[in-house]
Amino acid sequence: MDLQVILYEPASFETKPQGTSPCHATADCLSNVSRFKINEIGPADASVLPVESTLREGEQFANAFFDTETKVKIAKALDDFGVDYIELTSPAASEQSRKDCETICKLGLKAKILTHVRCHMDDARIAVETGVDGVDVVIGTSSHLREHSHGKDMTYIIKTAIQVIEFVKSKGLEVRFSSEDSFRSDLVDLLSVYSAVDKVGVNRVGIADTVGCASPRQVFDLVRTLRGVVQCDIETHFHEDTGCAIANAFCALEAGATHVDTSVLGIGERNGITPLGGLIARMVVADRDYVLSKYNLRKLKEVESLVADIVSFSSCGGLSMSWWLTNSVQINIPFNNPITGFCAFTHKAGIHAKAILNSASSYEILKPEDYGLSRYVHFASRLTGWNAIKSRVEQLGLSMTDAQVKLCTQKVKAMADVRPLAIDDVDSVIRAFHLDLTAAEENPLLPTEKMIDHEMNGNSARQITA
Amino acid sequence: MDLQVILYEPASFETKPQGTSPCHATADCLSNVSRFKINEIGPADASVLPVESTLREGEQFANAFFDTETKVKIAKALDDFGVDYIELTSPAASEQSRKDCETICKLGLKAKILTHVRCHMDDARIAVETGVDGVDVVIGTSSHLREHSHGKDMTYIIKTAIQVIEFVKSKGLEVRFSSEDSFRSDLVDLLSVYSAVDKVGVNRVGIADTVGCASPRQVFDLVRTLRGVVQCDIETHFHEDTGCAIANAFCALEAGATHVDTSVLGIGERNGITPLGGLIARMVVADRDYVLSKYNLRKLKEVESLVADIVSFSSCGGLSMSWWLTNSVQINIPFNNPITGFCAFTHKAGIHAKAILNSASSYEILKPEDYGLSRYVHFASRLTGWNAIKSRVEQLGLSMTDAQVKLCTQKVKAMADVRPLAIDDVDSVIRAFHLDLTAAEENPLLPTEKMIDHEMNGNSARQITA
Repeated sequence: MDLQVILYEPASFETKPQGTSPCHATADCLSNVSRFKINEIGPADASVLPVESTLREGEQFANAFFDTETKVKIAKALDDFGVDYIELTSPAASEQSRKDCETICKLGLKAKILTHVRCHMDDARIAVETGVDGVDVVIGTSSHLREHSHGKDMTYIIKTAIQVIEFVKSKGLEVRFSSEDSFRSDLVDLLSVYSAVDKVGVNRVGIADTVGCASPRQVFDLVRTLRGVVQCDIETHFHEDTGCAIANAFCALEAGATHVDTSVLGIGERNGITPLGGLIARMVVADRDYVLSKYNLRKLKEVESLVADIVSFSSCGGLSMSWWLTNSVQINIPFNNPITGFCAFTHKAGIHAKAILNSASSYEILKPEDYGLSRYVHFASRLTGWNAIKSRVEQLGLSMTDAQVKLCTQKVKAMADVRPLAIDDVDSVIRAFHLDLTAAEENPLLPTEKMIDHEMNGNSARQITA
Repeated sequence: MDLQVILYEPASFETKPQGTSPCHATADCLSNVSRFKINEIGPADASVLPVESTLREGEQFANAFFDTETKVKIAKALDDFGVDYIELTSPAASEQSRKDCETICKLGLKAKILTHVRCHMDDARIAVETGVDGVDVVIGTSSHLREHSHGKDMTYIIKTAIQVIEFVKSKGLEVRFSSEDSFRSDLVDLLSVYSAVDKVGVNRVGIADTVGCASPRQVFDLVRTLRGVVQCDIETHFHEDTGCAIANAFCALEAGATHVDTSVLGIGERNGITPLGGLIARMVVADRDYVLSKYNLRKLKEVESLVADIVSFSSCGGLSMSWWLTNSVQINIPFNNPITGFCAFTHKAGIHAKAILNSASSYEILKPEDYGLSRYVHFASRLTGWNAIKSRVEQLGLSMTDAQVKLCTQKVKAMADVRPLAIDDVDSVIRAFHLDLTAAEENPLLPTEKMIDHEMNGNSARQITA
């Protein structure tokens, strides 16, 4: 396979960028792909993304205890959502882990089932007996891990890797070989081991930013280099320690990676990995039609809520209060989560609200309706503007001129300067103002249109944003 | 000023990458900077980062209502943390906003105080009277915003920008000009307006990913292009809609940007912007010594908790339950937050725990002690390994051989297969096992060292990770 360079042509979902936008400026002149398509990346069968690892990486999350029933529930929800691969905890981790692996393999899901084991024949032998479709093997390659973890040298790593890969393939299963801590490994070591396993027919090689140190341009460069060295698919795995796990995954795909490891809400060791929903948000901007055709996006919030509930409370059933106090943390969908954060589609500043009311794409790159969610224009704050209040006046079925709405807006803003307002509060202000207007028509001492115009002069919505 | 290209040489904090690591592979051959330094970016006075916008962008967060006392508290906390700039809501937004701006300017903080207004003389006149050190002006430049927001053309934008900039400068204040929705704007339009305002002496130009559509490589390319066009500083502003706000800020700095807008926990319109703490995490990996010397990192969790509390509950004081039910959402530090997420330094899988116990840097790119936080090795799960249990045995002051610890670990894992375990549960298992061992010395029917060796054969910690 040739070196692959992927062009990402970001687009608003309604109108493609016109003219010489900065988006176009990032076109890579080596690219022969005019528009990002997940299924145009990599070899023939490479329309696969993500490797959903809630049941492996996610089990390493501090708060996770998944019993068999819970694992089955999560696996089915992921399958409904449309993921291609579901990765499970090593059957060598514990007796129940092995049984759970067998149980999930028997569910008859559409997704392929993988398990993830050390690069060691003992583990591989156990893995191939569970009924999985494939085995992900991993070994630390950085000097940090070679010294402080397994203590093996590169010759041993390559020899063992080949032995394990050939064994798994002899059973007719897919096999992936990944290094661990790839971004603190020696590049020549890495390329040597990847090249060696590629030659014996590994299905995928994996790059893992195990400690979360990688930055987007490093990721792009390493994947691009690797893309020129191996024929097989490239899987990637990014931790979130420095907040770049979604961006790193995206840059990996731009450089020719074919698979990204995710977990629901990103749960995993420490503060986790690339979250499934966040990656979806990023990919929708790149190619909305493709992502919509492939995943059941309206299930996203349901899957996230399911997992959040499981790692919050349901694992505490039957336990003592002391256990709960020691171990339990309420896990919510984070307020700032892409797509499903509670205010991801809430518009507050006056200028934002005005433009959103004219055209949603002016301040939205994602469409809430794609996810079964709603847009909300916040109008109960000091930052509100008269366009938002006008929209609310209309929702209430009242009739006012623009000048009247502007004056009413001033009253709302003055009240919002003093204390937080509820929607009901604002509605009361609007209704009272409207009553006064009606009365004024019969009493010339109350504000007239002309007086309002005077009072409003130069005083229209001044709230600001960016 | 020459075109600046910044090399980022990421490093573990204890040992720099050796040999041909992928980190080195990303070195940009145009660069003349061998190690990333925030104060080597941009013009002479450009050691400034970030522009802390919790009191402007953050006030646009759905849950934010900041009274004067609250604003003062946040401003002082940010000043203690060591931020260089604090940006405030436009004084034109409301009467109280104007008064609060004046109040904060009079606090005598070390940080420079900015306010953020529309690119309009009316707003600029109000802003310069508040006592701020500088004025950030903004106008939408994308076709989306030109059509659906202000309706102005580029000629009008450039003319007004120059008028406003010259006015602010005539008052002896700093001025920044930013486009809005820069990544959906026409590149020639953008460069024209930036070049024009640079010529009249603007202090900074700003790029804003207002809708959160930009990807890291786009950001790098646009900032790099701009770096060759203007002499002045470059400020950047990234929204979090697709989860790339930290990565985008970092790529902007690599390309020569000098300022990054942040807010505490990233609060802002929709799901917010680059979070202060997340950007710090990313920058510490790039240059720990510099970041430690500049910011009071041990205050990070305090600042984040302060803001989380304010946007959760304290804004509800004195309000009715119906208001609370309608408007209030508990805002926590997200479980997956870099640095301060509750498990950001918790290590669970057996292999991770083993290596961490040997050397913290094996699975940590950040040091918890830099932030006044602690590391925790999780040992109460089915994924635990004998190294973690051995460490706990030692903490409990008990004495066991490695073979005994391995057998004890099997008992812990078997129990953890059945239900979630508390630390107390594991300690009980360990103590009971130890009691049995002591008894065994007096009773040869209980397990001996030899029997344990036999039972453990080939059965050491098989848990897995990456």
